[in-house]
Amino acid sequence: MLPSLQTFLQKQCGWSITLLASLIMDASSAKATHPFWPRDLVIPSYVDNNRSMSEILVFLFSVSGAFLLVTWLIAGRLGTWRRLAVCWFAVCGFIHSVIEGWFCLYYDILPGDQSFLSQLWKEYSKGDSRYVIADNFTVCMETVTAAFWGPFSFWTVYSFLATKSYRFVLQLIISLGQLYGAVLYFFTEHRDGYVHSEFGHPIYFWFYFIFMNFLWIVIPLVLIVDAWRQLSAAQSLSDSSKTQKVKRK
Amino acid sequence: MLPSLQTFLQKQCGWSITLLASLIMDASSAKATHPFWPRDLVIPSYVDNNRSMSEILVFLFSVSGAFLLVTWLIAGRLGTWRRLAVCWFAVCGFIHSVIEGWFCLYYDILPGDQSFLSQLWKEYSKGDSRYVIADNFTVCMETVTAAFWGPFSFWTVYSFLATKSYRFVLQLIISLGQLYGAVLYFFTEHRDGYVHSEFGHPIYFWFYFIFMNFLWIVIPLVLIVDAWRQLSAAQSLSDSSKTQKVKRK
Repeated sequence: MLPSLQTFLQKQCGWSITLLASLIMDASSAKATHPFWPRDLVIPSYVDNNRSMSEILVFLFSVSGAFLLVTWLIAGRLGTWRRLAVCWFAVCGFIHSVIEGWFCLYYDILPGDQSFLSQLWKEYSKGDSRYVIADNFTVCMETVTAAFWGPFSFWTVYSFLATKSYRFVLQLIISLGQLYGAVLYFFTEHRDGYVHSEFGHPIYFWFYFIFMNFLWIVIPLVLIVDAWRQLSAAQSLSDSSKTQKVKRK
Repeated sequence: MLPSLQTFLQKQCGWSITLLASLIMDASSAKATHPFWPRDLVIPSYVDNNRSMSEILVFLFSVSGAFLLVTWLIAGRLGTWRRLAVCWFAVCGFIHSVIEGWFCLYYDILPGDQSFLSQLWKEYSKGDSRYVIADNFTVCMETVTAAFWGPFSFWTVYSFLATKSYRFVLQLIISLGQLYGAVLYFFTEHRDGYVHSEFGHPIYFWFYFIFMNFLWIVIPLVLIVDAWRQLSAAQSLSDSSKTQKVKRK
């Protein structure tokens, strides 16, 4: 019997009904015809990818690399760390707007769709099947990410290149948005018992699910601290200049 | 048969199994003995409140009012709007830390618990039953709110009273955190079809669910714009002072 259904029935109806329904369900359970977890998920529309994992990863990393390289060259006049931060926002702009944007538009047809980015999401879903079952929180969080943090990331790149006065405010807003999204993403899955991936799998669990997302915990944290320092120093200067003006009067 | 279970079975097993399970479920379904929506939710541990709605609302608004009044008096040297903003953070500190903090600690025993704050949450759950069924996203979002935005709100009050240089950075962080949390809170329920409340009910739906939470959309938005302006102006001053220094050299 499907364990998720079993838990659901236990919560809703108690053990007696669960046992009865269990008999019915055991008779009907078929072998999973997809690579996602939990293994008893039923995804009738699922079609196997015809693109390999390496094709998908090469695309993702080479396009991200191209964004990084072009931004690195354009941002030549900035210091090394600032230049790297700006490159990060360029890569975020691409990933949030294009990759995650695709998910927000097509999450309902993903399992059966064979377009390249849908195949990318089916590959990623081996590490977190919430993407292939259009989990409610995941769709909402990804929609906010694609609609706001994506365009805002490109805006941040521009704001640093043009030395706009709001550049660190934007850096703070996006980084906090990314951090909060990632924390909720891990936290909800932690409370779900990591059922949406093969727990401990070196590629799907550790690389796709943990590592790839952990980047959006660590780097935003560093950039929040950086923005905090920059903005506080600027505010300090502004406060002291106001105090001096008052004293002069 | 429980409609939510019916949908679940239809998705997982198709109509044949649904029909069989339907026969079993219909025999066992009992009338709901709680005031929550959807009406067929089964909450076996639920115990009716012995505190009235007015008792609970009087407590909530009088304690919030006390926090507001005390902060208003303490923050006398600030301008009216800034003083009001600081009062808002004091009230947020109380609501996030105490009210929402209680939910994070006791969400698993809420339905059957008769302590005052558990009764407050049972009353609120008439407008959103996700609190009384410990919905995963709700628990995660509330935990972040109670653990971070609560203490940070009190820290913001202090930072404005002591004119700390990071006061607008804190204002921006908390307001964005509150806004993102509230957006996800409404968005997930919108995609769930507003099933966790009596849709359109003047008190439970419109006052508890919509109005009380909409405050955390509107006020944070205003405070984000305010912090953006303040911090950008300060950064602008800092940038121009650096340019002048370079010119002098």
